[in-house]
Amino acid sequence: MTTPSSPYPLLDSLAAPQQIRHFTPAQLEQLAAEVRAFLIASVSETGGHFSSNLGTVELTVALFHHFDFLQDRIVWDVGHQSYPHKILTGRKDRFPTLRMHNGLSGFLKRDESPYDHFGAGHASTSISAVLGMATARDLQKQDHTCIAVIGDGSMTAGMAFEALNQAGYLETKNFLVILNDNDMSINPNVGSLQGYLNQIMSGQYYHRWRDRIEHAIKAIPLEGLSKGVAKAAKWSEESFKRLMVPGLLFEDLGFRYMGPVNGHDVNATSKALAEAKEKMKDGPVLLHVQTKKGYGYEPAVQDPLKWHGVTAFDAEAGEIIKAASDPTKPAPPSYTSVFGKTLVELAKTDEKIVGITAAMLDGTGLNILQKAFPERCFDVGIAEQHAVTFAAGLAAQGMRPVCAIYSTFLQRGFDQVAHDVCIQDLPVTFALDRAGIVGADGPTHHGLYDLAYLRCLPNIILMAPKDENELRQMLMTSIYCGHPAALRYPRGNGLGVPLETPITALPIGKGELLREGDGLLLCAVGAMVAPAMALAESLQEEGLSCAVINARYIKPLDDALIREWAGRCKGLVTLEEGCAPGGFSSAVAESLADAGLLRPMLRCAVPDHLVHHGDPKRLLEEEGLGPKSLFRRIQAFASQI
Amino acid sequence: MTTPSSPYPLLDSLAAPQQIRHFTPAQLEQLAAEVRAFLIASVSETGGHFSSNLGTVELTVALFHHFDFLQDRIVWDVGHQSYPHKILTGRKDRFPTLRMHNGLSGFLKRDESPYDHFGAGHASTSISAVLGMATARDLQKQDHTCIAVIGDGSMTAGMAFEALNQAGYLETKNFLVILNDNDMSINPNVGSLQGYLNQIMSGQYYHRWRDRIEHAIKAIPLEGLSKGVAKAAKWSEESFKRLMVPGLLFEDLGFRYMGPVNGHDVNATSKALAEAKEKMKDGPVLLHVQTKKGYGYEPAVQDPLKWHGVTAFDAEAGEIIKAASDPTKPAPPSYTSVFGKTLVELAKTDEKIVGITAAMLDGTGLNILQKAFPERCFDVGIAEQHAVTFAAGLAAQGMRPVCAIYSTFLQRGFDQVAHDVCIQDLPVTFALDRAGIVGADGPTHHGLYDLAYLRCLPNIILMAPKDENELRQMLMTSIYCGHPAALRYPRGNGLGVPLETPITALPIGKGELLREGDGLLLCAVGAMVAPAMALAESLQEEGLSCAVINARYIKPLDDALIREWAGRCKGLVTLEEGCAPGGFSSAVAESLADAGLLRPMLRCAVPDHLVHHGDPKRLLEEEGLGPKSLFRRIQAFASQI
Repeated sequence: MTTPSSPYPLLDSLAAPQQIRHFTPAQLEQLAAEVRAFLIASVSETGGHFSSNLGTVELTVALFHHFDFLQDRIVWDVGHQSYPHKILTGRKDRFPTLRMHNGLSGFLKRDESPYDHFGAGHASTSISAVLGMATARDLQKQDHTCIAVIGDGSMTAGMAFEALNQAGYLETKNFLVILNDNDMSINPNVGSLQGYLNQIMSGQYYHRWRDRIEHAIKAIPLEGLSKGVAKAAKWSEESFKRLMVPGLLFEDLGFRYMGPVNGHDVNATSKALAEAKEKMKDGPVLLHVQTKKGYGYEPAVQDPLKWHGVTAFDAEAGEIIKAASDPTKPAPPSYTSVFGKTLVELAKTDEKIVGITAAMLDGTGLNILQKAFPERCFDVGIAEQHAVTFAAGLAAQGMRPVCAIYSTFLQRGFDQVAHDVCIQDLPVTFALDRAGIVGADGPTHHGLYDLAYLRCLPNIILMAPKDENELRQMLMTSIYCGHPAALRYPRGNGLGVPLETPITALPIGKGELLREGDGLLLCAVGAMVAPAMALAESLQEEGLSCAVINARYIKPLDDALIREWAGRCKGLVTLEEGCAPGGFSSAVAESLADAGLLRPMLRCAVPDHLVHHGDPKRLLEEEGLGPKSLFRRIQAFASQI
Repeated sequence: MTTPSSPYPLLDSLAAPQQIRHFTPAQLEQLAAEVRAFLIASVSETGGHFSSNLGTVELTVALFHHFDFLQDRIVWDVGHQSYPHKILTGRKDRFPTLRMHNGLSGFLKRDESPYDHFGAGHASTSISAVLGMATARDLQKQDHTCIAVIGDGSMTAGMAFEALNQAGYLETKNFLVILNDNDMSINPNVGSLQGYLNQIMSGQYYHRWRDRIEHAIKAIPLEGLSKGVAKAAKWSEESFKRLMVPGLLFEDLGFRYMGPVNGHDVNATSKALAEAKEKMKDGPVLLHVQTKKGYGYEPAVQDPLKWHGVTAFDAEAGEIIKAASDPTKPAPPSYTSVFGKTLVELAKTDEKIVGITAAMLDGTGLNILQKAFPERCFDVGIAEQHAVTFAAGLAAQGMRPVCAIYSTFLQRGFDQVAHDVCIQDLPVTFALDRAGIVGADGPTHHGLYDLAYLRCLPNIILMAPKDENELRQMLMTSIYCGHPAALRYPRGNGLGVPLETPITALPIGKGELLREGDGLLLCAVGAMVAPAMALAESLQEEGLSCAVINARYIKPLDDALIREWAGRCKGLVTLEEGCAPGGFSSAVAESLADAGLLRPMLRCAVPDHLVHHGDPKRLLEEEGLGPKSLFRRIQAFASQI
């Protein structure tokens, strides 16, 4: 792959990452520089996670200098900072396919490389996973090193703490947690832990004590004291210093704390890793590495949030390339922004409304609320469990909390939704963005299971809007229904429908008949309603008359409406962008069964297998939910009944 | 209610808990003594949580001395230590109905009393809930105090840490966390946090530093030093002392730490609360209270685990009363013990098998493994999230982990099951005890949702044994199937069937036809298989011929078998002890729909509403799943089709 003019001569010459173990300090620096240059060039073409990967270049190079990850184990928390790892483990040439259909995953993936030991996508799993690996190693009498690299944002999630708590207790040896501290989750990080880390990083924590102690102790005229007292004083000095060293919080949890180290000095990081290797022979070590998201690419340093995940960009100009759009026909607003703006609209007239997000202010649109009503918008950090029960506490005292969490991330708060919200029938609204197939982020991010895992819970009202105007109505409905409620809507833009003002609440549990017909009933929910209407048109042209229902509610289902039209038609088709087992189709099947209504039924949902990453439209088509597949499937179904 | 001879004169005279605010120290002591005596007398009659409630008597009395819980808010974490709270808030006379059908709940319950501000049952939710309440208070410009009481066991769960992290950041005032430290979860507590707390409690942490520092500092001849230096030395002394005070870990998270206080000295506790009231004006306070589970009842102090939850007992003799049993017909073994013993049997011949529990060694039967193979049994504390991903890490390195977690508690690890285990298709076995209706513990503990929330996930194999012998087979099947697998089984005793040796694995996805028939197909799973067989007998006597299938697998469902027999019969009945939406019945309905097989169907499952606490048999009957209800329902169904 090396060409005479390659800008990455050392990187290109790398046949295996094990070669890095023998690199000189100068070579390590060169390799890091080349990896960074490659990253910028490559991601500027494909898009992808950017800031976080620029932050881990030197750390990754230093790790490969010290460890052989065919034996040693490493887990990168979340995995969105693992591009350097991928570049160094034989996947550089696949970067042009990054996050594309059948291309390189944007996260770690066990079946992509023997160097990917544990996949992720959700935050804060790495310490648990690596502790499991280290325990397996010890039981199998192996002796490699096990390493978790975790960001300070991920460290705020409870499961990271749970893992530290067990690791300190087990005193697991050759077990290293690298805290990659860049003062960020996707949004700037929050929480008292962050304040603590900031004190350490700024040197405050250390300097606050050190100077004064040294001053006081040095002033003690040791020569005038008895030998024993002088020794005690000296001993105290050492003890005090040790105590003043930051990281006591981690030491109290049983870890040996090291740092902070400048994570952009590859040789300083390498030296720290060498030391850590020694120290971890006695028990778990936490190495605190200070990095900067976006390091080495100035626009990303200036605005790491904007450059966290990007589309293709002009690297030289520092400008993200906008998709070409027709200026006469502006793109419809995103569901996210309609949600955010509507929430503010409602919050203006009701001061009991508050918003809660788990480190996703911008992603959920809650940044709009934060700007309008900062005191009524809470970013709790990466802590979905706490977010949900915090909301339940607010609701118990008469507030109207809206928890804005991605569909896939609410899985992390499932027990809290069940135990704290639904069992107590507390009026908390869950606004689930990114429901359905999300595209490039792949299996860990698709929001496929929400309808199934929420529908089984008592008291909850569960809905999905057919367009952005209905989202507004459903948000209002949820907030004022007096029960737990969830609305789920897809990633991306709305349909461009007019937004009605004032917003009106919808009757609970009532669907909407959009079209009459007597051949097939197309019973759709959420993002599949518009395609269902289009299908009905096309099928009509083929002589098949279709009724169409916008179910609106997955729970309570509009049994009466669905049964009525299922009864009038020869068969029915359910359409949803969610998992086939237990979801909307399942609710409809239950409803028909309970009514003793026997009708042939075609369930159009995401089949019960992993859906990989790639272009959402293409994925939908592959899963049988694109317009072409649906047309074929429904025609075939109609011909059989 | 007071009688001349009442052993609880002060308690009986209490018309409202607000009276306690004016009690003298002597009265507080007397009240505590009476509450304890009442507790022992009452629980010895009804059974219930015991050790934990004996531990909180003085703390509760002291709290009511300082706060008015019609204004002030309090959440008792888990709630199994809230009996003193209930006794003091007008529910003493209902204690004879404790945990019985339509009787007093064993936990806090919002609709049971205006003094119950937030219900629980699962651990570690209190700080989040109370922080939400305090935030609502501040937004509504109210000024009462908000208090969470949380055990050291509950503190190991990540969501407690998430809540501390936000509270310290918000600097919420008049917000108090009381750490009720008794060195226990239900099993003795584990984790490095516990080690830290133990150091504090034993005084080690403090004494380790204090003596030496004082020694060193006192020896400094201040008079010989310049004024500035002397001042600095003095300042250092103070700082050092402050630093040496335990609780720095909590202080680093933004809390003011106080304690440890002897929680069985009601007036010392009261004094600490008075101090805390002052200190919390500036921000969140954590008060560390030291208590003993079982305090005041010697047998419970000696064995707090045995006395954690008890049936009726002879208070004087200190002996738990065993239910009368027929000595000629010993009770069948519990599912729990069969699981534990079978796991050891399998572990003997396969050293890759390891067991994992989240603070439920005895409850899950994993104590049997711990005794046999201590190095292969891991109690991670109350930390289901970590437990699951720790297991995933073990599986990724070739071990065969078995996570033994109650059905209801696995909800806490749902995202980890989905994201870490199922998406990666890692062979982790989940052994879900307490599936179905559990009885006295009520809504927070019924294991009703597992089939629905697990069935939607890709790659998982999901089963339920019809008896304890099949449990053995399914455990073996799960461990060796090479995929994520879960088996769920009920609380209580097996059916008394012979246990086959050697254990044989079952074919994946194959059900079992237990009985032929052509009227109705009874398609049952797990604990409902035996009742289905009995029903088939009774219905036969009424002239209705029933086929019976033991489905064994909820996923993959034995489509072929079920469709075949559904086709041969006029209609089918599904039977499961789980929630009606999304569960087994739903899987069967989907299967028939996908095959285009139209058959009338009766779904016998737990209806979609809260199931309260009480006798399991009676609850089953009320929910339409007892033998009498089922017989009637099925007869009616048969007559309609």
